Amino acid sequence: MKKPLLLSLLALMPIISFSQNRPRDLGIKIGVLPVGALNAITDVPGVKVGQVTLTEGADVRTGVTAIVPHDGNLFQQKVQAAMYIGNGFGKMTGYSQVEELGTIESPIVLTNTLSVPTAADAIIDWTLGQKGNESVRSVNPVVGETNDGFLNDIRGRHVRKEHILNALAQAENGAVAEGNVGAGTGTVCFGWKGGIGTASRKLPQKLGGYTVGVLVQTNFGGVLKVNGVPVGQELGQYAFKEQLDKSSDGSCMMVLATDAPLDARNLKRLAKRVFLGMAQTGGIAANGSGDYVIAFSTANRVLHDAPEPTATATFLTNDVVSPLFMAAMESTEEAIINSLFMAKTMEGTQGHKVEELPEEKVLEIMRKYGRL
Amino acid sequence: MKKPLLLSLLALMPIISFSQNRPRDLGIKIGVLPVGALNAITDVPGVKVGQVTLTEGADVRTGVTAIVPHDGNLFQQKVQAAMYIGNGFGKMTGYSQVEELGTIESPIVLTNTLSVPTAADAIIDWTLGQKGNESVRSVNPVVGETNDGFLNDIRGRHVRKEHILNALAQAENGAVAEGNVGAGTGTVCFGWKGGIGTASRKLPQKLGGYTVGVLVQTNFGGVLKVNGVPVGQELGQYAFKEQLDKSSDGSCMMVLATDAPLDARNLKRLAKRVFLGMAQTGGIAANGSGDYVIAFSTANRVLHDAPEPTATATFLTNDVVSPLFMAAMESTEEAIINSLFMAKTMEGTQGHKVEELPEEKVLEIMRKYGRL
Amino acid sequence: MKKPLLLSLLALMPIISFSQNRPRDLGIKIGVLPVGALNAITDVPGVKVGQVTLTEGADVRTGVTAIVPHDGNLFQQKVQAAMYIGNGFGKMTGYSQVEELGTIESPIVLTNTLSVPTAADAIIDWTLGQKGNESVRSVNPVVGETNDGFLNDIRGRHVRKEHILNALAQAENGAVAEGNVGAGTGTVCFGWKGGIGTASRKLPQKLGGYTVGVLVQTNFGGVLKVNGVPVGQELGQYAFKEQLDKSSDGSCMMVLATDAPLDARNLKRLAKRVFLGMAQTGGIAANGSGDYVIAFSTANRVLHDAPEPTATATFLTNDVVSPLFMAAMESTEEAIINSLFMAKTMEGTQGHKVEELPEEKVLEIMRKYGRL
Amino acid sequence: MKKPLLLSLLALMPIISFSQNRPRDLGIKIGVLPVGALNAITDVPGVKVGQVTLTEGADVRTGVTAIVPHDGNLFQQKVQAAMYIGNGFGKMTGYSQVEELGTIESPIVLTNTLSVPTAADAIIDWTLGQKGNESVRSVNPVVGETNDGFLNDIRGRHVRKEHILNALAQAENGAVAEGNVGAGTGTVCFGWKGGIGTASRKLPQKLGGYTVGVLVQTNFGGVLKVNGVPVGQELGQYAFKEQLDKSSDGSCMMVLATDAPLDARNLKRLAKRVFLGMAQTGGIAANGSGDYVIAFSTANRVLHDAPEPTATATFLTNDVVSPLFMAAMESTEEAIINSLFMAKTMEGTQGHKVEELPEEKVLEIMRKYGRL
Repeated sequence: MKKPLLLSLLALMPIISFSQNRPRDLGIKIGVLPVGALNAITDVPGVKVGQVTLTEGADVRTGVTAIVPHDGNLFQQKVQAAMYIGNGFGKMTGYSQVEELGTIESPIVLTNTLSVPTAADAIIDWTLGQKGNESVRSVNPVVGETNDGFLNDIRGRHVRKEHILNALAQAENGAVAEGNVGAGTGTVCFGWKGGIGTASRKLPQKLGGYTVGVLVQTNFGGVLKVNGVPVGQELGQYAFKEQLDKSSDGSCMMVLATDAPLDARNLKRLAKRVFLGMAQTGGIAANGSGDYVIAFSTANRVLHDAPEPTATATFLTNDVVSPLFMAAMESTEEAIINSLFMAKTMEGTQGHKVEELPEEKVLEIMRKYGRL
Repeated sequence: MKKPLLLSLLALMPIISFSQNRPRDLGIKIGVLPVGALNAITDVPGVKVGQVTLTEGADVRTGVTAIVPHDGNLFQQKVQAAMYIGNGFGKMTGYSQVEELGTIESPIVLTNTLSVPTAADAIIDWTLGQKGNESVRSVNPVVGETNDGFLNDIRGRHVRKEHILNALAQAENGAVAEGNVGAGTGTVCFGWKGGIGTASRKLPQKLGGYTVGVLVQTNFGGVLKVNGVPVGQELGQYAFKEQLDKSSDGSCMMVLATDAPLDARNLKRLAKRVFLGMAQTGGIAANGSGDYVIAFSTANRVLHDAPEPTATATFLTNDVVSPLFMAAMESTEEAIINSLFMAKTMEGTQGHKVEELPEEKVLEIMRKYGRL
Repeated sequence: MKKPLLLSLLALMPIISFSQNRPRDLGIKIGVLPVGALNAITDVPGVKVGQVTLTEGADVRTGVTAIVPHDGNLFQQKVQAAMYIGNGFGKMTGYSQVEELGTIESPIVLTNTLSVPTAADAIIDWTLGQKGNESVRSVNPVVGETNDGFLNDIRGRHVRKEHILNALAQAENGAVAEGNVGAGTGTVCFGWKGGIGTASRKLPQKLGGYTVGVLVQTNFGGVLKVNGVPVGQELGQYAFKEQLDKSSDGSCMMVLATDAPLDARNLKRLAKRVFLGMAQTGGIAANGSGDYVIAFSTANRVLHDAPEPTATATFLTNDVVSPLFMAAMESTEEAIINSLFMAKTMEGTQGHKVEELPEEKVLEIMRKYGRL
Repeated sequence: MKKPLLLSLLALMPIISFSQNRPRDLGIKIGVLPVGALNAITDVPGVKVGQVTLTEGADVRTGVTAIVPHDGNLFQQKVQAAMYIGNGFGKMTGYSQVEELGTIESPIVLTNTLSVPTAADAIIDWTLGQKGNESVRSVNPVVGETNDGFLNDIRGRHVRKEHILNALAQAENGAVAEGNVGAGTGTVCFGWKGGIGTASRKLPQKLGGYTVGVLVQTNFGGVLKVNGVPVGQELGQYAFKEQLDKSSDGSCMMVLATDAPLDARNLKRLAKRVFLGMAQTGGIAANGSGDYVIAFSTANRVLHDAPEPTATATFLTNDVVSPLFMAAMESTEEAIINSLFMAKTMEGTQGHKVEELPEEKVLEIMRKYGRL
C-alpha cells in the first residue's frame, strides 16, 4: 500500500538548520556590497521559495525548487522579466515568450532535466485552477533544470505533478534551505556535491537602496575559486586536469529577483551579469552545460487585462543600473559558494557517491591565502 | 467502459482524400519554382509525417502532427537544425539547445498550447525507449503549438501521451493529410478554418537540385492574400476591419525540411525566409501570435557519440543559398494556402463555429483577378 | 577651379515633381489602412528628410539621404529606437548601442556601401559641433547603406563629408523626393531602377490614431509583385529565371518612424514587420543582401543627462500594437513600390544602364489582373 | 613646417622592453593551462599585430592596434569568425556581416571611439588597394574602440588614415608591445592606467594541442582582482566605493585568435567565454561599457570566389570545445592583468593624470594573499 501523499512528502522534507555553516558565517566575505537581511533571494519583498526534496531508497535523489515572484495571481499580474542564455545546452522552457513580451506569468520552477514537462504541466494545472483564471486558455510555464543523473535515477522520472504543486503550496518568505534540497538534491558542482544556494545584496541608499537576490541550482564545473582562492587547484580537482572528460558539463540555473524598477531590457542586462558572477567561481560554461538566467522585477506589475491601451510606469534610467550589475555578480558568486558549503556528501543511484566540499580543508586553504 | 485505445484512435482518424481540391490542382500556381512530386514536406527523402486527430463530442477538436526527420535513431544521429522566432508569444520548447548546438535530436511534434508538456514528456518516453538509448539521460524534445481554444476545449487537455506516441508510430513517407487534421484540427486562420498544410519546391539542377519542404499549422490572422489576390478584402474579412480585436492573434508553426547540405547558420537564414513566406499570405505576426520556424537538413547527420574529435562535412557555400531562400518562401506561402483550402467548416466547443474558406467564391475572386 | 560647394550641390539637385506618378495616384492602392497626408515618413510630426544627389559625368551616381527624428539636439534628447537585421550582409553602423540602450542619438544617414565611414565621420562632426554638445566625447552614428556599384563608381568614393552635412542642413518636413535621389540615386531593384521611396499609414482613432512612416533605399531582388500582381513574371524578369546569378543580391535599407509611444522592445517588433512588408513585394532577402530596419518613436524622448535616476513614461501595452504592425507592413510595401515607380532609367559607370520599371506595361498588367 | 610623416611616426614609436615585468615573470601564474611561447595572441601561427602610438604635446594620447589574421589577401581568403557583444554601449563596426556570414574579411583594428570611421575608411583603402582586389566593391571593415577621452583630446580626432595604414604595414609576428601603446595609449582600467595586453594558452596534445591567443584594449572598471586577490579593495579603489559615479564605464575590446578548427557557431561560444574571463578580473561590464569580443580561427579559410558550390571542411565537434573555453577565459584574464602591469603612469589632456597600478604594493598584496 502506498503511503498517503502528504505524509510521504513530509517524510521527504529535509531537516535543515538554517544560517549555520554558511560561508559568510565562517568569515568568507564575498564582494564589497552590503548583504540583505537573510542573504537570500527572499530578501526581495514578496518573493517566496518552496522546495520539495525527493530522496528515496538508493536511487531517488531529486526534487523541486519553486520561486514565486509575488503573492497575487501571477497570470493576471505578470512581472517584468527577461532571460539570458549563457550556454544553451539545456531544456529550459518558457524562453521565447518572456523575451517577446518582457513578462513572466507563472512561478519559476527548477527540477531535473527529464522532469521539465511534468513541471510545466503542473504549472498549467496550478494556473488554470486559480481563482480569476477560469477563462485562461494559454499559460507560459517557466521551468529550468539541471541534470542530476549521476546521483539520481533520472530515467525513472520520479518527480510527479503533486511534487511540483506541493512546492508551490509551501512556498514562503523567509530563510531558504540550501544544499541537498529541492532541485539541488542530486546535483554535482566542480566535482563536489552541489545544490541550491542563495544570496542577496542590498544597495546603499545613495546607490538606490534596492535589493537583488539570486538563487542557484549548481551542477557545473571548471576550476573552483572560493572568493578568488584557487581551492580547486589546491584540492587537486578541476576540469581537464588529466584529460578530456565531461565532468565540467552539467548546468547552472540562476534566478535573480529585484525590487529595482527595471524593464525587460535592463533586466536582460542584469541577467547577463549573473552569468559573469558564475565565472567568478571558476565556472567555464562547458559545452554540455545549460546555463540560464531568469531575472524579474517585483516593481511595475503588468496587468493581463490592461484597462487602458497605454500604461505609465517609472523605471530606472540606464545611467544608474551599474551598481545593480555589481550586486548581481556578487550575489551569484556567493549563492554558488553557499550551495557548495551547504551541500553534504551523498550516495545515490548505481552506487555513485559525491563528496561534499571538505569544509575544514577549504577553510585551511582560505587561511593559507589570507582570506579568513 | 472505455474503448480500447487503438480502436478509439482509429475511430478518430479522419477520412481524407488526398490531392483533391488542393489549390494547385484548382489552377492556383504560387511562385516560379518547380514543385516536388507530392508538393509536401515528405518530398525531402526520408522525412515522415504522422498525425492523430482528436474530434470527440462537441468539445474536443485538437490533435498531434509529428515530423520525423529520418528513419534512424534520431538521438544518436542528430540532424543539423536551427530555429527562427518570428513572434515569440508561444510555448515552443527545445529552442535554446537547438540554437546552441545546431542540431535536433528528437522528432518535431506540433499540438495545442496546453499540451506541449504532454508532448515533450511523450518524446522523452519515446527516446528513452529506443534501442541504443539505454543510457541516455538527457533529451531535448522539440514541440510547437498553436492555440486551438476557440473550437477546442483546450483547458480539458485532451491530448494524452498515447496520442503523441501513436502519431510517431504511424509516421510515414508519402502524401500528407491537410486541413482539419492532427495539430490543425481546431485551428483558425484569417478568420476561416485553418489547419495543417504542406508544400515543397525542387530546385532545378542548375540551382542545385535540392528539395525544400514545408509543413505548417495555421492559426493566425491578417489580411488574406491568395497568390497575391486580396481575398480577405473581397470577402470583407480581415484584421482590424471594424475595431481593435484579437482575431489576428493565434500563431503559426512552420517546419522546413531540406536535403540541401546546410549547417545551422544557413538553416537559420532559411528559417527566416519561411517567416517571409508567411508574410506573403498577408499574415502580420500579430502581438498574440507565436510564429516559429524549425528548419532541419537531412544531410550531414551529427553523431551523438562522435568517434573522433573532428568531423568533416561538405556544406553549401553562402553564395549559392539564395535559390533555397526563394524555395522556402514559396513553399511556405503555398503550404499556408493549402491549409486553408483543405480545411472544412467545423463546429466545436461552446457552440463556436468556424467557416471554411468559401472555395467557390474564392475561385471566382481569383478569376476576377486574372489568377485562374 | 572648383565650383563653390553650394552651387555645385545645387547643380546636382534633381528636379523632382512630387506626387506625380506615385502608384497610389495611378490607382494602385496597397493595403487596407488609411494613408497619411503626404504618404511619407514625414507624416510623423517632426520628422525631417534631407537628400543630396550626386550625378556627375559618366561615373558618379550616388548620394545621401538623411532622416532627422526631431528638431532638437538629438544627442541630448535621444529617441526610443530599435533595429532589426533581416539579412546582415551589410555595413550598417551603430547597431549594438541602439540594441543595448534602446535609443538613437544621431540622425540616420543612408548612403553607398563604401561611404559609410565618411557618413559616420560627418555625423560625429555634426554632433560635436552642436550647441550644448561642447563636452560630448562619444557619439553613436547610425549609418546604413546599399551598394550602388553597378551604376556608380563606388570605388571612387565620391561622397564627401560636406555632402552628408549638406543633407543634414537641408533636411525638412514636407514631401520627400523619391526615385533617383539621395542614397537611391544609383540603386537597382528587381532588375529595374530602384531608389528612394516612402509611404505612411495613419491609424483610425479607434486603433489609436498613430502615424507610421517608412522610407526605403531599394537595391534588392526577387520576384517582383506590385500589390500582389506578378509583375516580375509577366515582364519575364526575376531572380534565378535562367540560372544562379547574384542579381538578387543588393540590400534594402528601411527606416520607420512613428509617433506611437513604444519602447525599444516593441519598436523592435515593429521593425520586424517592416521586413515582412519587404517580403510582400517579392523580395527574398538574398544571401548578398543587407536588409536592415531602423525604427524609432518620436514619443518619450530620453534625456542624455537625466535629472533623476528614474524616468516615468507612458507606453502602449503589448495588446494594442498589432495595428501598428499592419501599418508597418503596408507602409513598407508601398514605399518600395513607390521607389520603383518614381525611379527613371539611368546610365552610369562602365556604360551600365538600368531601365526603369516600364510604367505603361505595368499598368497594363495591373489592369489585366484587375488591380486598377 | 610639418615633419615628414614617416619620421613623425617613427618618433612616436614607443620604446618598449618586452617580456619584462609581465605578471607571469613576477610569479603571478593565472590559471592551470600551459602558456604559449610568447604568451601572446601571436602564438597563433600567422597572426600579426601592428601598433601606432600617438603621444604628442599635452593632449594627444591615443593610437591604433591592428590584428592581422594571416599573411594572405584577407578579402579573398576570409577567416571563420564570430563576435559576441557583452555590453553594447560602443561603436564597434562590422558586427552584422560577421554574424550573418560567419567570416571576417579585413584586419581587425582597435582605436579610440571617435576614430572608428577613420579606421574603417583606411581599411577600405587598404583592401581596395591590394593586388587581386581590383574589382572589389564591398568591404566589411572590423573596427573596435574604447573611449580614451579622459587622457586624450578625443574630440580632436588625431588618428588619421595614415596611422591606421602604418599600423597595418608594420604588423608582424613575434612579441607584442603592451601597456601604453597603440589603441591602449590613453585608456584607464579599474581607475589605474590601462592599455594593451595579450596572453595565450596552448592546450596539451591530449586536449587537442591548439593555441588560443587573446589581445585586449582595457578601459573598464569594477573591483579589481589579480589572480583572485582583492587588489582593488586592498588599494581602496573600486567602483561605487563612495557613490554612484561613472568611473566603471569605459569598455573593453577583446580579440581572440585560435588555430583550432572551429566554425562561426563554436567561435561565438568561445567569444562568450572571453567575456567570462573579463569577469574574473572583477570587471562588471558597467552600463557605459562597450565590451565586445571578436573571435576568429586561422583554420579553414573561406574563399571569396569559391570554385564550387560546396566546400568541405573539418571542424571540432561540440564535445571537445570545453578546454578551448577554459583557455579563452584564462588568456583573457591574464591579458587584462598584463595590460595593467605593463601600463605606466600618464598625464594627458586637461591636466588629467592616471597612475599606473602600483606594482610594488600589488606584489606585496599578492604575497599577503599567498599568491606569490
